Amino acid sequence: MEFGLCPSVTLQQLFDPSGVAVVGASDTEGKIGYEAMANAVAFDGPVYPVNPSGEGELFGREFVASVTEIDGDVDLALCCVPGPAVPDVLEECGEAGIGAAVIYASGFAEAGEKGEELQEATVAVADEHDISLLGPNTSGFIVPALDLRCSFASGAEEIPAGNIAVVAQSGGVGLVLAFQARRQGRGVSAEVGLGNRANVGFAEAIEYFDGDEKTDAIVLHIEGTDDGRRVLEACRASDTPVIAYKVGQSDVGDFAESHTGALTGDHELYTAGFAQYGAPTVDATDDLLDAAAALGNSPEPDGPNVGVVTAQAGPGIIITDRIQRAGGRLPELTADTQETIDEILPGITYADNPVDTGRPMPAFGDIVTAVAEDERVDIVLVYELFEASIGYPIETLDGLAERVGKPVLFASEGIEEDLAEERAKLEAAGIPYFPTPERAADAAGALARYAKLHDDAVADGGIAALDADADGREVSRDE
Amino acid sequence: MEFGLCPSVTLQQLFDPSGVAVVGASDTEGKIGYEAMANAVAFDGPVYPVNPSGEGELFGREFVASVTEIDGDVDLALCCVPGPAVPDVLEECGEAGIGAAVIYASGFAEAGEKGEELQEATVAVADEHDISLLGPNTSGFIVPALDLRCSFASGAEEIPAGNIAVVAQSGGVGLVLAFQARRQGRGVSAEVGLGNRANVGFAEAIEYFDGDEKTDAIVLHIEGTDDGRRVLEACRASDTPVIAYKVGQSDVGDFAESHTGALTGDHELYTAGFAQYGAPTVDATDDLLDAAAALGNSPEPDGPNVGVVTAQAGPGIIITDRIQRAGGRLPELTADTQETIDEILPGITYADNPVDTGRPMPAFGDIVTAVAEDERVDIVLVYELFEASIGYPIETLDGLAERVGKPVLFASEGIEEDLAEERAKLEAAGIPYFPTPERAADAAGALARYAKLHDDAVADGGIAALDADADGREVSRDE
Repeated sequence: MEFGLCPSVTLQQLFDPSGVAVVGASDTEGKIGYEAMANAVAFDGPVYPVNPSGEGELFGREFVASVTEIDGDVDLALCCVPGPAVPDVLEECGEAGIGAAVIYASGFAEAGEKGEELQEATVAVADEHDISLLGPNTSGFIVPALDLRCSFASGAEEIPAGNIAVVAQSGGVGLVLAFQARRQGRGVSAEVGLGNRANVGFAEAIEYFDGDEKTDAIVLHIEGTDDGRRVLEACRASDTPVIAYKVGQSDVGDFAESHTGALTGDHELYTAGFAQYGAPTVDATDDLLDAAAALGNSPEPDGPNVGVVTAQAGPGIIITDRIQRAGGRLPELTADTQETIDEILPGITYADNPVDTGRPMPAFGDIVTAVAEDERVDIVLVYELFEASIGYPIETLDGLAERVGKPVLFASEGIEEDLAEERAKLEAAGIPYFPTPERAADAAGALARYAKLHDDAVADGGIAALDADADGREVSRDE
Repeated sequence: MEFGLCPSVTLQQLFDPSGVAVVGASDTEGKIGYEAMANAVAFDGPVYPVNPSGEGELFGREFVASVTEIDGDVDLALCCVPGPAVPDVLEECGEAGIGAAVIYASGFAEAGEKGEELQEATVAVADEHDISLLGPNTSGFIVPALDLRCSFASGAEEIPAGNIAVVAQSGGVGLVLAFQARRQGRGVSAEVGLGNRANVGFAEAIEYFDGDEKTDAIVLHIEGTDDGRRVLEACRASDTPVIAYKVGQSDVGDFAESHTGALTGDHELYTAGFAQYGAPTVDATDDLLDAAAALGNSPEPDGPNVGVVTAQAGPGIIITDRIQRAGGRLPELTADTQETIDEILPGITYADNPVDTGRPMPAFGDIVTAVAEDERVDIVLVYELFEASIGYPIETLDGLAERVGKPVLFASEGIEEDLAEERAKLEAAGIPYFPTPERAADAAGALARYAKLHDDAVADGGIAALDADADGREVSRDE
């Protein structure tokens, strides 16, 4: 969203290519070279099937024998060839001036000594020719807005465009997150599986998506890295909010290492590090997307003070409890606000923070507005069970977040089909929606933590402000 | 499900009444006495509108002036009258031989001294006539299988019948849980909001639903109680699994007390107490329903050892990490099992526990079967991203849980519409389904904790077995 950094030209060739070459394209259904081509042709740019033994056309595109023989503009090569063939393919890509490649094959650094040698050889060729490598050992990536689907996932074409960039160490988890976003009515600006991160890692991806107009929040799924400091620096430099999900608090043995060749490392160290460098951390895939929806679709909060309005006390208590555990605070409302609320709703059930209206009513939106306008409140969270006869206070809330310059989150529950239309209107009005009290409270907590981490007043104190999710240890500072 | 205890005859009049009287029934739409009647008439038994000033019929039923004038069998009175009128109404109910009543009105113990006096007077009348009171200050209850909807919730008629009894201190949270269950394709045997628990509290509800044939798991939402010991004893006596969600780890101030008149108490004490009395605790509404789905639809696990089979490493690592944090263990598989797996899938990505097949394939179900048959495994958890061309291994898994006598949980992600039908078949085959790796792992963790808590071998040690979620403090033992 922001342009504090120039977009990396190299990764632009990867994620926004002029044209695509599918190396190892095949007319045999089920083969990776067939599936890659089937997905690639949806892209609104030239797509070339490359195979020395290919004849005629594939999906209406003429086979070429080598990338060096392509007569046209191609930035990106999808390498659908076995691992050992990769260095030669990259050599040809370099000759052809191709600046980016996806390597799907496994059997590299995650697979012992021989694999490590193969990966080193691959990176050497890529570095010589300035080629950005996604992978190896990845399911690829998807940019829905460009119909650019460099992935073989069943259903990849159904993932909707949105403003969350999903950057996952594991391609499988990247897809989990993308499908999950869709299931929750959200979309992604990109879904990226980094795999072995031969030369494109978290830092490069964060830099790129920070400069990507389609992206308003970046989420990271991390198993482990050996360049932690660079990742953290990229988080700090990013104007676009970054939220991190570091897996592996308990011992997952050698399973993780066998996956993407990464050691999972010390969880607490990661958590403290991310906090210190301005990226809130979460502990589950749905929390990750919820935090992104809150941060990516709201004004940046000025502080961690949450004003809660609820139409039912029970969910309000859950939310109140949970926000405080997630790093937020519930300030007392000003006397002015309490007076306004009393005027709107004489005899209100509970007029402090949380404000409990007892049930939804026509004035519910006005109560939310009064709380949103309170100077002590930085973030607003609203809960109400859906009542078909009243609906959500959409007109009153429309534009409220922008006007007061604060995030306004909304959570509700009810009969899905009855509330779906109203929920869509709410979200169109700039109000992120959450399906459970806990998930809304956790999203508000992520906003609160983000605000604390980005508050200039406490920047020097830095980690001291972080009472919610870190134990205060600094990350290694050796450079 | 089990019949270790006789069902309470009194609560049977509440939750399984012969007939229903709606006291304060009204023909004015929007009034509680109208809405209650509109909901009640769906019940497959006699329903009487009671109002001294009522004339003619309401929803085709003749008005009667008082419950004492009803010519028919009525167990349950729905009191749609203001609080101060309640004692007189109950007096008449007693004369009429009505054994149960729901009091919706607020303004009782949750509302200061005068309210407390009103509640005492109400309970005195109820005790004199042996009337079970649900409430006051509740949204009521719903028993979908009987079309018995003694609640005013918008959409209550859409809540499907299922095997989970939801017993919530807050009626609002009860409805949140019931709607949430529906949204997740599940149903409830009952949704109960206890409110002020004047004489029907958690203990009475647990006893009743333990004896209810429709119920296979009981979930509790608790803000606070003053009869903790009785609640815990009821948990221990229940053959039906009980799972508890205790709200209020952080300070929620006087807001909770203003809600249902309960102090939220010491969270750690509750957690340790439930553990000691055999009820695993969870920390969110969706975790509560997930644990109930796992416990209510599976054979009881013999121990906490989880065998994990995954078709993608990334989600497998998340699950492995999370299960261990949730109280489960991942044992090494026996050499026999590993051999079997190698035979089924030579060159498998990772053949230890978790078993990682790299992607779904036709033999995936056979791998799951091999792990399920491993003597070291008590609980099986399967993850795979949905691939339309392969689907889920439904035929292989059908009946597996029953045959091996172990829970088999399944989690997946993909394009919702594509996988919905297959998921329904899986669940029909006795395999509970979860939408995220974390939620599946947490459900497996709840099964593992339940197994540890109910392992006779450690029953004496009791709380010592609980390393996952309690700090070992005993609950008060004064009797």
